[in-house]
Amino acid sequence: MPGSEFQLIQSYFSDPEQVSRSDLILGIGDDCAIVAPRKQSNLAFSIDTLISGVHFPHNTSADAIAYKALAVNLSDLAAMGAEPAWFTLSLTLPEVMPGNKARDEWLEEFSTALFALASEHNIQLIGGDTTCGPLSITIQISGYVNKDGGMKRAGAKPGDRIVVTGPLGAAAIGLDIALGQNKEHTGCLSEADKQLALRALNYPQAKIKEGISLQGIAHSALDLSDGLISDLRHILIASDVGAEIFLEQLPLSGVLACVDKKTAWEKALTGGDDYELCFTLAEEDWPKVRQQYPEFIAIGMITAEKDLRLLEADGQEFKMQKRGFDHFG
Amino acid sequence: MPGSEFQLIQSYFSDPEQVSRSDLILGIGDDCAIVAPRKQSNLAFSIDTLISGVHFPHNTSADAIAYKALAVNLSDLAAMGAEPAWFTLSLTLPEVMPGNKARDEWLEEFSTALFALASEHNIQLIGGDTTCGPLSITIQISGYVNKDGGMKRAGAKPGDRIVVTGPLGAAAIGLDIALGQNKEHTGCLSEADKQLALRALNYPQAKIKEGISLQGIAHSALDLSDGLISDLRHILIASDVGAEIFLEQLPLSGVLACVDKKTAWEKALTGGDDYELCFTLAEEDWPKVRQQYPEFIAIGMITAEKDLRLLEADGQEFKMQKRGFDHFG
Repeated sequence: MPGSEFQLIQSYFSDPEQVSRSDLILGIGDDCAIVAPRKQSNLAFSIDTLISGVHFPHNTSADAIAYKALAVNLSDLAAMGAEPAWFTLSLTLPEVMPGNKARDEWLEEFSTALFALASEHNIQLIGGDTTCGPLSITIQISGYVNKDGGMKRAGAKPGDRIVVTGPLGAAAIGLDIALGQNKEHTGCLSEADKQLALRALNYPQAKIKEGISLQGIAHSALDLSDGLISDLRHILIASDVGAEIFLEQLPLSGVLACVDKKTAWEKALTGGDDYELCFTLAEEDWPKVRQQYPEFIAIGMITAEKDLRLLEADGQEFKMQKRGFDHFG
Repeated sequence: MPGSEFQLIQSYFSDPEQVSRSDLILGIGDDCAIVAPRKQSNLAFSIDTLISGVHFPHNTSADAIAYKALAVNLSDLAAMGAEPAWFTLSLTLPEVMPGNKARDEWLEEFSTALFALASEHNIQLIGGDTTCGPLSITIQISGYVNKDGGMKRAGAKPGDRIVVTGPLGAAAIGLDIALGQNKEHTGCLSEADKQLALRALNYPQAKIKEGISLQGIAHSALDLSDGLISDLRHILIASDVGAEIFLEQLPLSGVLACVDKKTAWEKALTGGDDYELCFTLAEEDWPKVRQQYPEFIAIGMITAEKDLRLLEADGQEFKMQKRGFDHFG
């Protein structure tokens, strides 16, 4: 839509009410945006694409799509301990919008949700691109990170505690509900719990504040997007270490109430989209962090031996039905 | 493709041979990239998405797609007078690649072309995302711009010369050839000329050097992606001025040889994808710029009257067959 691109961007994404940052020199509507970054920090960048039917069900609301597209990028900054600043948006819209919604209405809902979350984090939309095609949203986000900061995936050391910032598995249940699948996993839930699960899936909370306060403390960190096991594996490979996870310590979301313990573990271990942070830190630093954030839960230890072992209370290794990640590296 | 995403990025986009910039702290493979921008400059950002069948014909080679996806972003920086530094890539790949090409082979070709162009401009790929869906490529590029620099669309003044950096219309002929359409526009061309036209379409040359040297001289600038008339209109609206274009002065690409003069004008005025810069500057600065860049051509003047007038040699207004943009604002 070369002709209408300009108008689209102008009318929905040039919100005069949006955050107005003093480190922005030139915003939306030119060939480039220009920023004047503060000198005492480095900059962190992350880019993520969400595609309809891949990263969210086709029936997801415009509001939830906008929220999630920005939240997953915020979450990448959180995992680095960065403070968000600006973002750009590339929006690809189909001829026929989901649910036959009028394009104007969809865009109004999308942009309202986008700016609401942006405002919450004091970040500004500084540029964009609108194209015609199957619905997808790409956001690149930029943020400030301390000169000596940045929590990498590499850096985990044997003896480190492995900690997650909150309960796991709710988004996986939300996906079951959204897709009408695995009804035995959701059948016992109250309507309120179902809404909680859907909210976890569609409106993930990026742990920005938590990420920033872990700078200089966490040895390694990332955000949980693909599932604990799958993501933790990135830390283990990058750090050339292994891990033991104590399953009884996994913080299971309350919406896992319909399933037995082992199924709940599997959901918490492999379910995606939780967007909690997972980090490692020295044993001695854990009590102080736990005191500041009582909701953080230690779930295991980093080991020199390069295995990932999932341990039950009796020390037996847990074998998952779905897939195993026991040996690698 | 959550599982294979990691491997994909690792194997094709972590080229150890690629440019290694000293202002990059942390590159591909973590939650974010981290850069340490030099203090004396501002930063310019641009994001562009290319979609198969919209921005390039489905039969375009992986090599050309990679080149163009990066080149159009470089061109946005050129239009701002910025010096390119880093870029991120979000790549969406279908299950079945174009022409049933093996995915590995396609990625090898794509990444080789991408790194070749990146190396030419001394820019580094610092992060990315790979997803599964209809073929599309989003690149966000970042570059340095002088603290007092940045050529905006706003800034054109009545009496300014309007200048383009090179010939127009070749990419439009290239598109005719690629799609096998408008054969009367291409029938007389030699095989060599057809290759030239396809090259103009698929391998646009971003005018980085030219953009940088126009800093502080050009009053307004942009790059020609949608076609001269359509793009110039952005300058006119942003600057609250009008323009007169002298059609006899339009630099027509040599591959417009098969069409009559008026059709050639239309191709040059409305054909997209040329990626020349179009800028305005004070009359008194023009001789010096023309001396430095003899290939630059003055094509018109900025007027106080807010019309866009296309003038033939006798001063008559030219009426296009396809569409007019005579009155606006």
